[in-house]
Amino acid sequence: MLEVLNKQIVLASRPVGEPTAENFRLVEVPLASPTEGELQLQTLYLSLDPYMRGRMSAAKSYAQPVPIGGVMEGGAVSRVLASRNPSFTVGDIVQGRTGWQTHPISNGSNLERVDPKLAPISTALGVLGMPGMTAYTGLLNIGQPKPGETLVVAAATGPVGSLVGQIGRLKGCRVVGIAGGADKVAYMRDELGFDVALDHRAPDFAAQLAGACPDGIDIYFENVGGHVWEAVFPLLNNFARVPVCGLIAHYNEDGPQPGPDRLPMTMRAVLSKRLTFRGFIVTDFAAQAADFRRDVGAWLKSGAIKYREDVVHGLEKAPEAFIGLLKGRNFGKLVVKVAD
Amino acid sequence: MLEVLNKQIVLASRPVGEPTAENFRLVEVPLASPTEGELQLQTLYLSLDPYMRGRMSAAKSYAQPVPIGGVMEGGAVSRVLASRNPSFTVGDIVQGRTGWQTHPISNGSNLERVDPKLAPISTALGVLGMPGMTAYTGLLNIGQPKPGETLVVAAATGPVGSLVGQIGRLKGCRVVGIAGGADKVAYMRDELGFDVALDHRAPDFAAQLAGACPDGIDIYFENVGGHVWEAVFPLLNNFARVPVCGLIAHYNEDGPQPGPDRLPMTMRAVLSKRLTFRGFIVTDFAAQAADFRRDVGAWLKSGAIKYREDVVHGLEKAPEAFIGLLKGRNFGKLVVKVAD
Repeated sequence: MLEVLNKQIVLASRPVGEPTAENFRLVEVPLASPTEGELQLQTLYLSLDPYMRGRMSAAKSYAQPVPIGGVMEGGAVSRVLASRNPSFTVGDIVQGRTGWQTHPISNGSNLERVDPKLAPISTALGVLGMPGMTAYTGLLNIGQPKPGETLVVAAATGPVGSLVGQIGRLKGCRVVGIAGGADKVAYMRDELGFDVALDHRAPDFAAQLAGACPDGIDIYFENVGGHVWEAVFPLLNNFARVPVCGLIAHYNEDGPQPGPDRLPMTMRAVLSKRLTFRGFIVTDFAAQAADFRRDVGAWLKSGAIKYREDVVHGLEKAPEAFIGLLKGRNFGKLVVKVAD
Repeated sequence: MLEVLNKQIVLASRPVGEPTAENFRLVEVPLASPTEGELQLQTLYLSLDPYMRGRMSAAKSYAQPVPIGGVMEGGAVSRVLASRNPSFTVGDIVQGRTGWQTHPISNGSNLERVDPKLAPISTALGVLGMPGMTAYTGLLNIGQPKPGETLVVAAATGPVGSLVGQIGRLKGCRVVGIAGGADKVAYMRDELGFDVALDHRAPDFAAQLAGACPDGIDIYFENVGGHVWEAVFPLLNNFARVPVCGLIAHYNEDGPQPGPDRLPMTMRAVLSKRLTFRGFIVTDFAAQAADFRRDVGAWLKSGAIKYREDVVHGLEKAPEAFIGLLKGRNFGKLVVKVAD
């Protein structure tokens, strides 16, 4: 009988600027046996998400960095292979933050059961999981969409942005989606039903955005920063709300950025236009998980919202796929299929 | 009989950077006679406030700029000299945005009656007026003070800051007040009862602030920007709220500021610390005027809050006093006593 090994992707070194393949290392370790209360899991799908870039840096953030040599953090959907925990049975499908590895051990404390009859199990990492709840809670609590308002969302074919835009439509907003590339623009327009779909790579993107927002912008759901923010900022209306969910354009920055210093004029606009900038993390709204599941589950079932996955096969592909994610190469929710 | 003339301070030219005496001009015009529905007023107290700097510039803001040659805008308390408006009687004391002039004509539409028995009439321009309501509404709606939290407020001997700090104390916050100069520091400590009083001109101000906030900062009421913000920013706690009320350090800036560009790292902190930045103008909370009058009126009556005025005599002194206000030379609410 072949010995099964636990494959893990560990953080080999901290990136300076963009992560590279050298920052990751694949290791194989013998399977630990679950002790009393523990479970042996087999990872089926691993989620790759932009926030993981933050975990690779030593800088203080809302969560601890991954230590050098530590298993990369991440959410995954797994099957229970062996259980010494009365809450779970062999064969159960579960999700939790079990990391970039094929055979995690868990004490069950942060696992949730996934119902395979409700939807494909990988959606527990996307539209019905953390990214979906990020979109739902950030838009509703901070964006506070009202009928007739203009909502702009970037990274709008990703799992967060695509749901933000679709919920915005359901709430009666005029939705302008932004993504990179003709295929994503077509998807936003033809599949997601956004009012306007723009390619941020177009040389006249800022002018296109201004043309697409004749009444200004009431909500900008910030996923990216960078040149998209530059184009959005002058269009913000009085009382505009900016849920700050992600800043993918800046995750690879180290140290101070070249001037001019835009902070003073930004704060002056916050004052004179009475803008709200508010950062959030999905766990801040953990109390709304039931609302999220009820609403998004119903919308999904009725066909009111759609989702798209970008599936990569094999744990060893995770580093390359993650590096591509930070460059916008994925098209839809990026997941790694680790096992059948 | 001497002819009475209406003295006015008009905007002679738009300032580039700091306003100077040359940007203002004193003119005397014959008194107009009130037509049907109008009132002839005599200005008793003129309010000088930092927001007026914005009105001197042509740049778009939340209000229209004063035109060149136009009477400088501002709130004032006046006596009714003649009335052809059934709502007001000769001798009434009123307040409204009647501008930098001795004898305004008003149609009465934006005037409010001031009760001289309630408090000194000049307080209608300060603690019981626009600055007081700015402090009350901004702190309670956006700052959302909770017992045990640390509240930092700058310009803290001014009419807004001093009330913010005192209301913060009443709500159970630990209050750190910031102002410029030993006399103001003594006043914050000995009269206003703040927990800590700091001089932002001290060479080690940032270190003093850090020492004064061992548990970080939960609310920073932003009146000033500049180097005070620099010292505050790294101390902001997760979920800190920043009501953006004023940015007096930046009002004289024209054009882009030298780098580095602090905006990206500021937005990253908004995200990772889940900060809220929200600008506001007192009129956004006009619906809370009755609450404000009830609460602050009662606190004033009981001695729970104090106020301080800096009174300049004569309309012709208004430009110089205003220029000093932007440099922090006033000590307390700056008003011009225009007539007895």
